[in-house]
Amino acid sequence: MREQLTEEYVRRVWEELPRFVKPTTFQSTMLLNKALGAEVTLAVETMQVTGSFKFRAAYNLLREVEQDEVVTTSSGNFGQAVAYACMLLGKKCTVLMPANSSRSKQDNIRTYGGEVKLIDTSKGSRSLYTTEWLNHHPDAFYAPPYDHYRVVAGNSSLGKEIFVHFGRDGLDHVLCPIGGGGLISGIVTARDLLAPGIEVVGAEPLLGNDAARSLRAGHLVSLEAEPATMADGTRTLSVGNLNWEIIREGLRRIVEVPEENIAEGLRLLYSRANLKVEPTAALTVGAMLTQPDAFRGKRVCLVVSGGNVDLDTYVKVLAG
Amino acid sequence: MREQLTEEYVRRVWEELPRFVKPTTFQSTMLLNKALGAEVTLAVETMQVTGSFKFRAAYNLLREVEQDEVVTTSSGNFGQAVAYACMLLGKKCTVLMPANSSRSKQDNIRTYGGEVKLIDTSKGSRSLYTTEWLNHHPDAFYAPPYDHYRVVAGNSSLGKEIFVHFGRDGLDHVLCPIGGGGLISGIVTARDLLAPGIEVVGAEPLLGNDAARSLRAGHLVSLEAEPATMADGTRTLSVGNLNWEIIREGLRRIVEVPEENIAEGLRLLYSRANLKVEPTAALTVGAMLTQPDAFRGKRVCLVVSGGNVDLDTYVKVLAG
Repeated sequence: MREQLTEEYVRRVWEELPRFVKPTTFQSTMLLNKALGAEVTLAVETMQVTGSFKFRAAYNLLREVEQDEVVTTSSGNFGQAVAYACMLLGKKCTVLMPANSSRSKQDNIRTYGGEVKLIDTSKGSRSLYTTEWLNHHPDAFYAPPYDHYRVVAGNSSLGKEIFVHFGRDGLDHVLCPIGGGGLISGIVTARDLLAPGIEVVGAEPLLGNDAARSLRAGHLVSLEAEPATMADGTRTLSVGNLNWEIIREGLRRIVEVPEENIAEGLRLLYSRANLKVEPTAALTVGAMLTQPDAFRGKRVCLVVSGGNVDLDTYVKVLAG
Repeated sequence: MREQLTEEYVRRVWEELPRFVKPTTFQSTMLLNKALGAEVTLAVETMQVTGSFKFRAAYNLLREVEQDEVVTTSSGNFGQAVAYACMLLGKKCTVLMPANSSRSKQDNIRTYGGEVKLIDTSKGSRSLYTTEWLNHHPDAFYAPPYDHYRVVAGNSSLGKEIFVHFGRDGLDHVLCPIGGGGLISGIVTARDLLAPGIEVVGAEPLLGNDAARSLRAGHLVSLEAEPATMADGTRTLSVGNLNWEIIREGLRRIVEVPEENIAEGLRLLYSRANLKVEPTAALTVGAMLTQPDAFRGKRVCLVVSGGNVDLDTYVKVLAG
């Protein structure tokens, strides 16, 4: 896959994709700088189409797919992004969702024109259901959420915006959440082309630290079970293969963020930046709280990856 | 005052002020359009400097003030805006705040370099304390929150952004909250210069409907006591004199929004647009919920005036 992620292809995506996605929102506040002890700019994707960066990935993935029918298994942001991208592209979309997925996310996928099929994950894995579904729909395209060069290239459009905004020397670090690794490998891809001197730092839940362990071990490490972190966008067993190749070469460190710092990050974005974010998007602020000395006084861009969070969860985290 | 609000002055503010304020954030989502049955664009000021449109007013008011010392009495957004504007302009700032003002707002004003003086409003009115303070500081400038031509002109910079963004014919209505009337008179001022065919509609809490009653009566009506609305940015007894002159000529209708629709507006902005807003900023969505037939299918711009809301209040409203 990596050989398809050429500079020529990536630069073509940067030309073509911005017509279909919203530019990120750069935001900084004196209150947040003071709270974090650094010169912080947020790259906010909560107002992106479908409420998270995932639309960049989904739309770029699907706009060059010939099949009229698409299936995916995400219960979260990728499902919504794929559903809406399919609506815009005139494709039929089916999202296989665990039966306990939140009602509001199911409703959003339907509003975006997707068909929701509930699956019982106690009786079989997501990939089992997907395989079975594809057997009955041999002409459909399966949309992978992170391990695909067009997904990485789509996400790299956010990195491009960041490095063009700040220039080659305008930042010390970009902090980015890691789940399946699709977003951070896009950021690294853009960094390598535009601003090789700026360090990209990963932010991963301590409870689901497979990428940090992989980086230490020098090979891809998988968790045994989905981690029980509140950052539900990172509940993956491991990063993807393509993503791992890029992460291994492109990152020097990944901050492992305890749950209480994810929560405090979410509250700081509420109180110091007037932002409603999902827990996964608070990982980068949480990383600064976890290693304050590493970033004190530095010029830091924090990727705030999305804002889709159920009311119950949000209220619980806010109330501490 | 109105004679000072000339086209020449207003256009000069539009040239000069944007260097110091952030542009508004235009946002629209399919989910919100579906929920409101109209083609809705939000003009979001929650990410403005100090978290609300008030910074436009405060900075424009104070940048041409010669005095080195400034006082104001707001306990909310205007106090924060004045404090930070003073910090930037190298002025000393004192904010007289009711002793029961929220701790976080007091802290923010201090972070913005302002001095907080708590006053006991059970022992005397805000204006009494202000007069007394000014007697001891005869060289200080009192910063009025809405009834001043430079305040109106500062706020008109938001209207300018809206009408330039949409053009003369790109909208049917702009909905705007009314408290003291500073913001809506700025929007009307810009509308009259740039897009006279677009209707500006007010959104006021039913519990504090002095402007709606004034418009019906044809003269300025004052409430007897501060209204107990959750939209704390509108707890004024009446609109200002200058503001009333502009409102009387510039508005045909003001929607009186019941508290439950303000709350539902706040929840819709949370769930359908990923925005954290203060109750006052939810008035415009609340107005659409209150009179759905009036706006169905129309192209509507809703001013979302700010995002500064205490955690306890926000959680209470979210949880319904």
